[in-house]
Amino acid sequence: MMKLKLKDFDDLRVKPGKAVDLSDHKTDRTHGVPKNPEEAIETLTQKLGVLQENLYAEGRRSLLVVLQGLDASGKDGTVRHVFDHVNPTGIQVISFKQPTTEELRHDFLWRCHNRTPPRGYIGVFNRSHYEDVLVVRVHADKLLAPELRGEGEGAAKEWQRRYRMITAFERILEDAGTRVLKFFLHISKEEQRQRFIARQKDPTKHWKLAEGDFEERKYWDHYQRAYEQMFPATSTKEAPWYIIPSDHKKARDFYIAGILVGILKEMDPQPPKLANPALTRLKFK
Amino acid sequence: MMKLKLKDFDDLRVKPGKAVDLSDHKTDRTHGVPKNPEEAIETLTQKLGVLQENLYAEGRRSLLVVLQGLDASGKDGTVRHVFDHVNPTGIQVISFKQPTTEELRHDFLWRCHNRTPPRGYIGVFNRSHYEDVLVVRVHADKLLAPELRGEGEGAAKEWQRRYRMITAFERILEDAGTRVLKFFLHISKEEQRQRFIARQKDPTKHWKLAEGDFEERKYWDHYQRAYEQMFPATSTKEAPWYIIPSDHKKARDFYIAGILVGILKEMDPQPPKLANPALTRLKFK
Repeated sequence: MMKLKLKDFDDLRVKPGKAVDLSDHKTDRTHGVPKNPEEAIETLTQKLGVLQENLYAEGRRSLLVVLQGLDASGKDGTVRHVFDHVNPTGIQVISFKQPTTEELRHDFLWRCHNRTPPRGYIGVFNRSHYEDVLVVRVHADKLLAPELRGEGEGAAKEWQRRYRMITAFERILEDAGTRVLKFFLHISKEEQRQRFIARQKDPTKHWKLAEGDFEERKYWDHYQRAYEQMFPATSTKEAPWYIIPSDHKKARDFYIAGILVGILKEMDPQPPKLANPALTRLKFK
Repeated sequence: MMKLKLKDFDDLRVKPGKAVDLSDHKTDRTHGVPKNPEEAIETLTQKLGVLQENLYAEGRRSLLVVLQGLDASGKDGTVRHVFDHVNPTGIQVISFKQPTTEELRHDFLWRCHNRTPPRGYIGVFNRSHYEDVLVVRVHADKLLAPELRGEGEGAAKEWQRRYRMITAFERILEDAGTRVLKFFLHISKEEQRQRFIARQKDPTKHWKLAEGDFEERKYWDHYQRAYEQMFPATSTKEAPWYIIPSDHKKARDFYIAGILVGILKEMDPQPPKLANPALTRLKFK
């Protein structure tokens, strides 16, 4: 396999401040994906496993991977396939659900900060603090005070305030030694429909069907707008967003694994030297 | 591979109340391990992955795996190899270290209850609440009030009190739908020495060497006694201890994977039926 670098995936990265029109981003793109994606993915995920071992041994820094996407966009599948060879000791996958009563008593970043990866770990947020500018925005009429709904000045200020909080939060993590990478799993509306139908047809997948799937799908365009608004405000040099074409699962896994390997190679974690070199010479009785 | 059942591993289980002499338990035993252990382990860990998916889909029960053993007994390696095919979304590995100041303000079970696996998850405790009747007992002269040290009546009462607390805690988990399995990774003193020497010789493993390794090894016999005392008091029908011969890493992985697959087959988790069967017929637009 060719030597991949982080910059090979740079066309998927959202440049800070640059407007995004999601209809310009093809969901079925496979540009750059090798003919045998399985083999390439296997190589990359093996590398990811080795790099994580070094990150763990080094014990100074961490990596936070944020996964966002609409229902059935493949967040769970990404976790299963991309992190297949990462030692379970060194990874924390957090699936954020509706906030609890306790969590709602705090600012929206509180529960996320509470679950950031410790030094040496990869943390994966399956959904994240971004829900508070996505689902909350789409359903603002049910979830927020009247003055914060709609397109008025109050609402505009509220989203700017939240974007500011998010970038400050991610800046804190960056300064603390946690690299932050954010992936939007971009699928077409038709692909989502096909995946829902596949769940209906397969009894072993019935448990994944929810009343809400039908309901939320009506808000497809609202979600696309909420994502488009959010990207330029929160994609920073230090904590970039990547828009991942995700209609094809192998392409999705290849892109994400490639970017993660790229960033970890840049970080270049190294097992620490022994604080006390005499330990290598002492005799065990 | 032959069809393995949980009872095939029953000679490794500590019968409740039965005295244990660790010198009767061979650390290099490979009885029952197939000629090609890699293949058998691969089959078992694949099965474990499938059974965990069902546990997750079912979403009602969980499994807590406690790993204990002396330094270099292979706790980390067990996690890496046995849970290789478990979806990282459905597993939580908790490595307990020395308690924090905050944790010390609570009873010793508090921090462990805080990290038990949610419904649908496998939880792995790499070290656990058992440290409070093991390392704390071995170093009682430094860690406990004078009346609780040594072999006097006060000390005897203290360990009985802690065993009682532990069995009550595990009984709570059992009643809440969490199966508890406990593994002692049993290695010989010579095998530990060889593994420490291997770490000294391999620069990529130097970071695992610690001053404490040399110090703790002096207490080898004290640890064996503390384990022997603890087994009969805390191995229950519901939450048994298994003493795993661990000099041979493949044998260790085979035994543990086999027991885990056995217990999960007994639990027989099933993805739930759809609460609203109409969802399979609704049309997605």
